[in-house]
Amino acid sequence: MDIELIRRLSIPAETKVVLCVLDGLGGLPGPRGRSELDLANTRHLDRLATDGAIGLTIPVGYGITPGSGPGHMALFGLDPLTYDVGRGVLEATGIDFKLGPNDLAARGNFCTVDANGLITDRRAGRVATEITAEICASLRDIQLPGVEVFVEPVREHRFVLVLRGEGLADALNETDPQREGVAPLEVRALAPEAERTAELARQFVAETRKRIAGRDQANHLTLRGWAKRPDLPQLPELWKLRAAACAVYPMYRGLARLVGMETLDAGQTLETQIEAIRSHWDDYDFFFLHFKYTDSAGEDGDFDRKMHAIEDFDACLPKLVALNPDVIIVAGDHSTPSVMAAHSWHPVPVLLRGKTVRADNRHVFTELECAQGGLGTFPAKELLPLAFAHAGRLTKYGA
Amino acid sequence: MDIELIRRLSIPAETKVVLCVLDGLGGLPGPRGRSELDLANTRHLDRLATDGAIGLTIPVGYGITPGSGPGHMALFGLDPLTYDVGRGVLEATGIDFKLGPNDLAARGNFCTVDANGLITDRRAGRVATEITAEICASLRDIQLPGVEVFVEPVREHRFVLVLRGEGLADALNETDPQREGVAPLEVRALAPEAERTAELARQFVAETRKRIAGRDQANHLTLRGWAKRPDLPQLPELWKLRAAACAVYPMYRGLARLVGMETLDAGQTLETQIEAIRSHWDDYDFFFLHFKYTDSAGEDGDFDRKMHAIEDFDACLPKLVALNPDVIIVAGDHSTPSVMAAHSWHPVPVLLRGKTVRADNRHVFTELECAQGGLGTFPAKELLPLAFAHAGRLTKYGA
Repeated sequence: MDIELIRRLSIPAETKVVLCVLDGLGGLPGPRGRSELDLANTRHLDRLATDGAIGLTIPVGYGITPGSGPGHMALFGLDPLTYDVGRGVLEATGIDFKLGPNDLAARGNFCTVDANGLITDRRAGRVATEITAEICASLRDIQLPGVEVFVEPVREHRFVLVLRGEGLADALNETDPQREGVAPLEVRALAPEAERTAELARQFVAETRKRIAGRDQANHLTLRGWAKRPDLPQLPELWKLRAAACAVYPMYRGLARLVGMETLDAGQTLETQIEAIRSHWDDYDFFFLHFKYTDSAGEDGDFDRKMHAIEDFDACLPKLVALNPDVIIVAGDHSTPSVMAAHSWHPVPVLLRGKTVRADNRHVFTELECAQGGLGTFPAKELLPLAFAHAGRLTKYGA
Repeated sequence: MDIELIRRLSIPAETKVVLCVLDGLGGLPGPRGRSELDLANTRHLDRLATDGAIGLTIPVGYGITPGSGPGHMALFGLDPLTYDVGRGVLEATGIDFKLGPNDLAARGNFCTVDANGLITDRRAGRVATEITAEICASLRDIQLPGVEVFVEPVREHRFVLVLRGEGLADALNETDPQREGVAPLEVRALAPEAERTAELARQFVAETRKRIAGRDQANHLTLRGWAKRPDLPQLPELWKLRAAACAVYPMYRGLARLVGMETLDAGQTLETQIEAIRSHWDDYDFFFLHFKYTDSAGEDGDFDRKMHAIEDFDACLPKLVALNPDVIIVAGDHSTPSVMAAHSWHPVPVLLRGKTVRADNRHVFTELECAQGGLGTFPAKELLPLAFAHAGRLTKYGA
């Protein structure tokens, strides 16, 4: 739905909505001819499907495989083709770095170059995270005119660079040449307004290189995914409600914060996440619960582990249902079929339960049943408006 | 479909299309676990469903509850988010007031204020329609510079104000403060081009107040929903056909007139409506038949009455089918589930029968079957182009 229309039609209400995102939920049949969701023992999900309605969501578009950013933007009701979260921002978000409006973030890789400055290893032998942390610590006092510099380790050879200051621009090239035997590229401005930023970035690279050139490994760096914090619609203002995110992984808390949600201290398990929701039940109207392990298992190509992750979620579901939300949604940000060991474009099973949901006589929550479900196959960005309608949070359009 | 594309591809033909709109057709299961449409005995509709194809329409968007205006615009093939019919226009339309292109209409309420001018009853005790008619009659000779003034009663405390003249603008505030204990707001311009109109409206309010201030009840007024007649595509020109509307309620005749349909003298019952269509069969290519009582019963929360209204329509259907239209459509402008006693956002059952319709092996016209129907779930604004294609009224796009 159009953002301005939401702003115009949304109304406050005394209802609670819970959005459960099983990351990478959608799958494909494995060796036994049935999908992870199909083979999983999911009696609580099936019970919800029986009471509610099911369908399939298309995260971004037909044939489009979404990253985590676009997949979640759509579930938050925002068109992922309009509201783009840059890679640098996602990476910063993933380590809980709180980006400000003047921050420019980039993904960094330490790499190894030879005596001629030509790359011999783009990932510096996947150097240990602790080493990367030490290098980052040694770079934090780099001085650049007019901006603050943040250098934060991520994992292995990866780090995040954040420049903070007025007038920074993200129209910069990527300096990773994507192959070995050549030197890292120089930072260049891709638009006139980025000339000053490019010069600052070149100074940062030069100073860093000076400091780490003597190392055997991780003696140079590449930068890419330059991005500023996007100016996204804020769910609390848009929908006139209080919204909380409950996610174990920082990236998903970060994505939720980008759209204005508060984040709950959710611990490390589904049990502690649900407990966090329970203990804050009166404080918020909308809860986003993120469950990662369906996706991790799918990405690893581990069919049975993904199936068991779904079962783990199913086992915890009664505790959520017991909170008696007016509307409960079970969805995924994209498919991650174990047989592909990667994100995919396949439509994603979705389930909606609430008092005014038109039950569709479907009793099992599987890809096949969802394709026949009463909700049909529809754009993921329409899910939240639909759910909020069922929660009495959208008023009539026109007389 | 895009209006310019329709204009380009539409061709005349010797075919007849009938669009039957059962207002508020879509429902939800009631106490017996099945919907109004599901429980109703609808053997003629089921016969049409067997011969044709069924599906669900989304009137405006996922989660959007349409008013009658947007619901009908969509069924007339116009995007209701693009073609907006203002509330004042709808209200004027609802009393058969024929708006001209220079008319500005507003919904008026008589209210009661105390000696200090503070509202004590926003609806003036829902004063009798006859009293409102008398007050309106006494205001018609109010003189405003450069415009004609029309004041027409609607029902109870409600009336319509129409100002007719060059250069009027609708960017005016609503003067109903939406609560009691405060005075009605003053009319103010919301844009510079509305300053003159605002001044005229203030003069009207001042003169009216002077005349009715002495009354115990209905001694003041509020105005809202300022709107000019929208400039809508005209179906006869767009589709190269002659179009007639057959509706008992004036609002639906008015909506049809806004898109260029002629209106037939249809009497007060479904029988007289169908007789009007029969006797004008050779005069038009497209007939819009509006049936109100499904919606009225739904709005009243009267499940059985809505079910019976559907059965009443079903009983008359053979007389329409006997006219042998090339394409017959049974649709609704929105859902009005009796259990909600209100319009809702739920997709609406639709049925299409014609020689080239691809039958979908569905034999019962219910929400559940429609969700499985061959037409799928699709935007209501696409229904008319689809029906006209089946009537041979759309030519090929591209070579």
